[in-house]
Amino acid sequence: MAQLQNDRFLRACRKQKVDRTPIWIMRQAGRYLPEYRAVRAKSDFLTMCKTPELVAEVTLQPIDILGTDAAIIFSDILVIPEAMGMFLEMNEGVGPVFPKPIRNENDFNELKDADPSKDLKYVIDAVELTKKELNGRVPLIGFSGAPWTLLTYMVEGKGSKNFSEVKKLIYNNPKLAHKILDKISDSVINYLNAKIEAGVDAVQIFDTWGGILSQDDFDEFSLQYITKIIAGLKRKDQPVIVFAKGVHSKLRRLAKCGADVLGLDWTMDINKVRERVGDRVALQGNLDPTILYGTQDFIKSRVKKTLEAYGKGSGHIFNLGHGILPDVNPENAIALVKFVHEESKKYH
Amino acid sequence: MAQLQNDRFLRACRKQKVDRTPIWIMRQAGRYLPEYRAVRAKSDFLTMCKTPELVAEVTLQPIDILGTDAAIIFSDILVIPEAMGMFLEMNEGVGPVFPKPIRNENDFNELKDADPSKDLKYVIDAVELTKKELNGRVPLIGFSGAPWTLLTYMVEGKGSKNFSEVKKLIYNNPKLAHKILDKISDSVINYLNAKIEAGVDAVQIFDTWGGILSQDDFDEFSLQYITKIIAGLKRKDQPVIVFAKGVHSKLRRLAKCGADVLGLDWTMDINKVRERVGDRVALQGNLDPTILYGTQDFIKSRVKKTLEAYGKGSGHIFNLGHGILPDVNPENAIALVKFVHEESKKYH
Repeated sequence: MAQLQNDRFLRACRKQKVDRTPIWIMRQAGRYLPEYRAVRAKSDFLTMCKTPELVAEVTLQPIDILGTDAAIIFSDILVIPEAMGMFLEMNEGVGPVFPKPIRNENDFNELKDADPSKDLKYVIDAVELTKKELNGRVPLIGFSGAPWTLLTYMVEGKGSKNFSEVKKLIYNNPKLAHKILDKISDSVINYLNAKIEAGVDAVQIFDTWGGILSQDDFDEFSLQYITKIIAGLKRKDQPVIVFAKGVHSKLRRLAKCGADVLGLDWTMDINKVRERVGDRVALQGNLDPTILYGTQDFIKSRVKKTLEAYGKGSGHIFNLGHGILPDVNPENAIALVKFVHEESKKYH
Repeated sequence: MAQLQNDRFLRACRKQKVDRTPIWIMRQAGRYLPEYRAVRAKSDFLTMCKTPELVAEVTLQPIDILGTDAAIIFSDILVIPEAMGMFLEMNEGVGPVFPKPIRNENDFNELKDADPSKDLKYVIDAVELTKKELNGRVPLIGFSGAPWTLLTYMVEGKGSKNFSEVKKLIYNNPKLAHKILDKISDSVINYLNAKIEAGVDAVQIFDTWGGILSQDDFDEFSLQYITKIIAGLKRKDQPVIVFAKGVHSKLRRLAKCGADVLGLDWTMDINKVRERVGDRVALQGNLDPTILYGTQDFIKSRVKKTLEAYGKGSGHIFNLGHGILPDVNPENAIALVKFVHEESKKYH
């Protein structure tokens, strides 16, 4: 493998000294880029995910266009449930749908363990190809949904407002919920290990729906499985980032789950979180994604504010507090990366 | 006015001694009750809001059926923007829509100050009629949306996922945003004062969307207007409850906005919040609404847990952490009220 030319992201994950704060953007390979839309226009979403050449192409776009300090392999968190045997529909304008959601023991019995070398080989091939094409320019991140977030989709079957079905499951049949979560966790472990073996330099676990649980329920139905996954990873020195959106509490416990980095959404105060758990983990985030709707002067002022909030020293990976929105002007994303690079030097 | 026969709710708001913890349920006059659906079947939603006899009827239903310790006048937070001159459509299955949302200075100039004695007379009439029909059984709560939450609806025009339009407004034209928020606040003050004059025993301000703002933005675009409203209320001893959903931070500052009670959603730890601000305010909440999907044994166990988390002494008003969901079995809501009444005695 080619030697890494820019290892700021990895160094910051490990809280090692850097010359400036690294930045990457969640969903940086996405619809806001005309170059992405051009690729996407030629194929449907799932075909894109399953075609290593297309994955490599869109994964590299933000490195070329924005100059971010890390690439993240283009994919979707729902490829895991699909690899576990669920039929996944990606409906234009509606979002992903599982027409046969998991609701009972019988549904559970039809789930299989995802075999990454077979069912998810396209991701592994994409990682290898992307690593080759990146040629050491920046590190490559692989990701997975957290078991709780995957369970939510698998049980609801589609987007939800109140998450009634998955809540019914955990409150009425916690035993079955735990069985499914356990099975998902095993598939996630195998999936992330296969990505690590294929060459990703770091992994991120997305718990998009951790924040809909009360604090004790988060412990029971989400955090323990994230912890299990991290313990099951066969990694050399690849850092693990956990992004639990909307999870404001239990930060100390979250910081002990084995992750090297905690991702923060924009409603958290990165300064206060650093005070609480910054001795233990690096922090990633946390600009409000809608800040990119503002003028470049305004974006710059908020970049400065976020850098100042984290303060001096390593351990900060700049990012948005959630994925970049599809109607953002790409010029503003380019400016964001430039501002972080320019303004962060004095903190190191 | 008839003497109050059950003042537990008001006493708890003031942190005075009670013999058991009072409970009411957000959206307790709602679709989960067949009795409500029977009334609703005969008229559309807005007509119901504007017909004092129907408002009084559904407002009293949960008092008769569940035995809650407070009534809350049936209405909708969007009657304020409507009274400010916006055309409001209530579309079955889609939710409320403002076909002409506020996006610029011209739109703003068309807004007028709501005159409660004229534009919202139907609410005032409904309060008076309901007070009469309640005949002192339990206190009556009046409510309003917080200015930030109202602004969100007025600018987005409909339900939103990313709140792009209102964020564009506050980031690109904060001056205009503040002008609108100020105008909304004035209308809310007049509206709540008219309700107080008409006889409500307490008021609740709902900031449903406070949690989509970063912490400093919440201060600037929400909290200062809530504070302004409370300062503008002409009240004798009517307590004010502020429910800012998803606002986990700045609890100390929130506790200083003039409110007597803070409402907590289910993702907060009522025990820890009491430790932080319980000397200053009473706390309302905070059972996960989806707990009511569970068995009655399970509901009872979670009721006990919440009561135990708040602990001994007054200052706790039991409630869900958000509105009761439309597909909840009413028997479970009845059981919830019973369990709170039975299990809470030992804490007083």
